[in-house]
Amino acid sequence: MHQIDWISANIAASATQRSLKAGQSLFRAGARPAGLYEVVQGKIRLVRLDRSGREAVLQLAAPGDVLAEASLFSSAYHCDAIASSEATVRLYPKSALLAELERDPKLLLAFSAMLARQVMTLRTRLERRNIHSARDRVRHYLTVNADAKGRSVTLRGTLKDLAAELGLAHEALYRTLAAMAADGEIERGKGQIRILRSAV
Amino acid sequence: MHQIDWISANIAASATQRSLKAGQSLFRAGARPAGLYEVVQGKIRLVRLDRSGREAVLQLAAPGDVLAEASLFSSAYHCDAIASSEATVRLYPKSALLAELERDPKLLLAFSAMLARQVMTLRTRLERRNIHSARDRVRHYLTVNADAKGRSVTLRGTLKDLAAELGLAHEALYRTLAAMAADGEIERGKGQIRILRSAV
Repeated sequence: MHQIDWISANIAASATQRSLKAGQSLFRAGARPAGLYEVVQGKIRLVRLDRSGREAVLQLAAPGDVLAEASLFSSAYHCDAIASSEATVRLYPKSALLAELERDPKLLLAFSAMLARQVMTLRTRLERRNIHSARDRVRHYLTVNADAKGRSVTLRGTLKDLAAELGLAHEALYRTLAAMAADGEIERGKGQIRILRSAV
Repeated sequence: MHQIDWISANIAASATQRSLKAGQSLFRAGARPAGLYEVVQGKIRLVRLDRSGREAVLQLAAPGDVLAEASLFSSAYHCDAIASSEATVRLYPKSALLAELERDPKLLLAFSAMLARQVMTLRTRLERRNIHSARDRVRHYLTVNADAKGRSVTLRGTLKDLAAELGLAHEALYRTLAAMAADGEIERGKGQIRILRSAV
């Protein structure tokens, strides 16, 4: 699922690109929202600052991610956006975007559907973080992401990405997968994990 | 923020209530979505089952929560919903809801805005779970939820609710708050936490 799939040709045509250096600010809390940003390259972090300027990270957006969707419906940003590395973003200007969404209910429904799917995915990730055992976290991931027959999971990124998604250290994930394979619970394939038998 | 604030009088009028016993199923994966459910009382869990019938929890919905928003845009449920306790739910029927949303762009925009805010909140909670130290997790929560001046946070539920939101054992949260108060970093008030000085 791509977060920007629902964008129409009209909206895409209004987009502009911007490059940022590491540490450069994309927007500041209190400023008027410019539109929807999609990360093309690099990473952007959304942060709120405490009184001493210490950052609390709200989101770390990677290529393909959209950030600050809620600002579309707000008159001011509620956080700062800062490039965590050299980065390129695409801006879908707010006025063009809102005009299109209001003009085209089908587009707005597609936007809502994308947000609803994201809500579900994020809730599921949060529930997974309530699981303490690394193996049970991996099992949760496999069950949720298995194909219709429950026999295999296609990995979308690297194992390092998966470790981050699961909130595990890389080493812990490698160790857990190796132990599960040794026990005959899974089999590692190229870009996928086959589920041989379920946990008992 | 209430997840159901955007519901119009028309949609509210079409709602029906249903009571479930603990363990009773509200819907099953593969079934046609009936509409949007709001939990009125008790808890409903959304689960996906592995091949041996072991549950992976996708969402644990409490009173005020809406569940399976994505099913509004889908022809079949992708998970089971089961009452975790005696529960009452309110159903906003899908056909009436979608008809209203397509008829009224303002309502659909309000629905999208609610989903976008939820996406942001959930992303922030997930980022918080990447923080290992209990004290830094509490600080992250305080920074994100502080009033405009960064001086106090109003608690929405009990400390037990807060512990669950932070992914901490109750004892760990109590201990951490007590240590922060002893160090002069915060002051506990009735239903709120005052931030005396920021972390260094």
